[in-house]
Amino acid sequence: MTLSIDKPTSKKPPRLRDKTITLAHGSGGRAMQDLIEALFVQAFQEGPANALEDQARIPLDELTAQGDRLAFTTDSFVVDPIIFPGGDIGTLAVNGTVNDLAVSGAIPRYLTCAMILEEGLPMQTLRQVVASMAAAAKQAGVAIVTGDTKVVPRGGADKIFINTAGIGVMRTGVTPAAVHIQPGDVVLVNGPIGNHGATIMVARGELSLETDLQSDCQPLNGLVDAIVSVCPEVKAMRDATRGGLATVLNEFAESARVGIRLIEDQIPVDDAVKGLCELLGLDPLYLANEGKLVVVVPPEQAEEVLAAMRSHPSGTQSQIIGQVTEGQWVSLKTAFGTERVIDRLVDDQLPRIC
Amino acid sequence: MTLSIDKPTSKKPPRLRDKTITLAHGSGGRAMQDLIEALFVQAFQEGPANALEDQARIPLDELTAQGDRLAFTTDSFVVDPIIFPGGDIGTLAVNGTVNDLAVSGAIPRYLTCAMILEEGLPMQTLRQVVASMAAAAKQAGVAIVTGDTKVVPRGGADKIFINTAGIGVMRTGVTPAAVHIQPGDVVLVNGPIGNHGATIMVARGELSLETDLQSDCQPLNGLVDAIVSVCPEVKAMRDATRGGLATVLNEFAESARVGIRLIEDQIPVDDAVKGLCELLGLDPLYLANEGKLVVVVPPEQAEEVLAAMRSHPSGTQSQIIGQVTEGQWVSLKTAFGTERVIDRLVDDQLPRIC
Repeated sequence: MTLSIDKPTSKKPPRLRDKTITLAHGSGGRAMQDLIEALFVQAFQEGPANALEDQARIPLDELTAQGDRLAFTTDSFVVDPIIFPGGDIGTLAVNGTVNDLAVSGAIPRYLTCAMILEEGLPMQTLRQVVASMAAAAKQAGVAIVTGDTKVVPRGGADKIFINTAGIGVMRTGVTPAAVHIQPGDVVLVNGPIGNHGATIMVARGELSLETDLQSDCQPLNGLVDAIVSVCPEVKAMRDATRGGLATVLNEFAESARVGIRLIEDQIPVDDAVKGLCELLGLDPLYLANEGKLVVVVPPEQAEEVLAAMRSHPSGTQSQIIGQVTEGQWVSLKTAFGTERVIDRLVDDQLPRIC
Repeated sequence: MTLSIDKPTSKKPPRLRDKTITLAHGSGGRAMQDLIEALFVQAFQEGPANALEDQARIPLDELTAQGDRLAFTTDSFVVDPIIFPGGDIGTLAVNGTVNDLAVSGAIPRYLTCAMILEEGLPMQTLRQVVASMAAAAKQAGVAIVTGDTKVVPRGGADKIFINTAGIGVMRTGVTPAAVHIQPGDVVLVNGPIGNHGATIMVARGELSLETDLQSDCQPLNGLVDAIVSVCPEVKAMRDATRGGLATVLNEFAESARVGIRLIEDQIPVDDAVKGLCELLGLDPLYLANEGKLVVVVPPEQAEEVLAAMRSHPSGTQSQIIGQVTEGQWVSLKTAFGTERVIDRLVDDQLPRIC
């Protein structure tokens, strides 16, 4: 059974007296109903959800007014730790799905929120995560319209896992897809890479390091609007999450049967990330991001797209980082003038990064 | 990042050599790509998903041809054990979301599938669950069009959790909602209650019982079609999952500010469920179902709806079980002629039931 985020009710929400999550909060009974009304409905009805008259029932003409296709996506989030510099699992869960929709060329509209909670989770932690989700949804201009809550006994899960599914409307005529990429096209990124992966690594506390690192977690739909408005012919866009920039570029190369040559000097990496990578023998190209977009555009539009990206708050440090070639490899021209192949990751650098 | 179930590819899927799930299967890299191509894409492209030309991009005119509103829902599944008589977590994950959509009056169309896997999960188990999902989707006539895979280190989750989100199209003019319920309306159910809850209880193996009990897990969209075709004015429908029949009826009564009087004799309960309940001091009214629908219709249409339900394979044992009254309580007229209040569940009878 799904409990939907209805329009604001006139009755006063129940007060939550429990200090931690108990199995009763997942029972389908009174305790679950109170949790949903006191926490989720209160937090999520603040946004554009108010526009909805009933549960998650969305008038189709409202969607067809914006485009001709629906984009539909899902992501589960299991990040550890659940709270980290620059965000928490709630910020991640909203922005992750917003970004998945945005890079497909869609205008993100509605999200679901399904939580798996471990018995014993402090109520205060859940409150913080839910508040982060509400704030992130507001920032991205999406509504969280329905949800689900499950509780597993202590030890059956680790604190909190969140799934968000999302729907968006694809603008008529805008159809980015990796198969459209051709030799000569230009590859851009909207800022320094690796910050999320590096931040989580440090936040685990196993390295005994202190840094100023912050996750780059942010919504990318505004930046995508800026790109699409100057370049509706954008070839492909993807957010470089798990597996980092290297993985996205390999997926692009494989789908389009092309090569991609990167220029190391052009790829923005913050000093703190560089330092951590040198210390641990890691490659920032494979580190996860949560607010970084890889864009491929026709060469004659590259400069205009770059300017549009730099004019947007989420893209002030955007760079052209390489070009599509004949061939089949992703390669990197290093600062020393040598060239090395950037292959896919086989093993896992860091589990539970998102 | 979401990986979408594309149209069938011409290239041969990779062979999975790993016998168990490893962290690399959640890395975003090669191992994850291979898992998705070898397992998910192969299984899920068998259904109507073939109709899709690209990822989860759905033409809006295909939806507007069926109705005027979109229904959007989500559910996570954490059932323990993951395989039980009558189904597994995969059957449950598909039918649960199909049923959520169906009872809102929608024609279920597209599902997502997001899995959280525990490191060490046998690949054979995952294969079985994925095959169940594909079979259930085929039976219900829905397509699984996109998904996500996360792996958590051993001990971070229990075997496998699945989230399915779903979209469906609401038929123009059909708007079941609990607030429409009025005194005089008639309450029906499509067959014996409590089988799923009782089955899971026995399947945990803590009771040392042997029974022939099976979960009632099934898709309800066909049955809803049959109901709506004779009674588009249906007042309310809901699947009686967690918290059972009692919880649904209490939600109805609260939303519509009415009472509901049930007749105990009329409520179908299988002997095996009755026996287990007597043995353990449980009430079948609170036991979970995964294929049971509670329907409220105007009194003048009750017999016609009952006949339509009994003509459908998922409703051969349908019964009229009670009537809506003035007042505010759900009550049960017992076989002895006494009447007792059926309140909401406060605590949890059985965690991880779905």
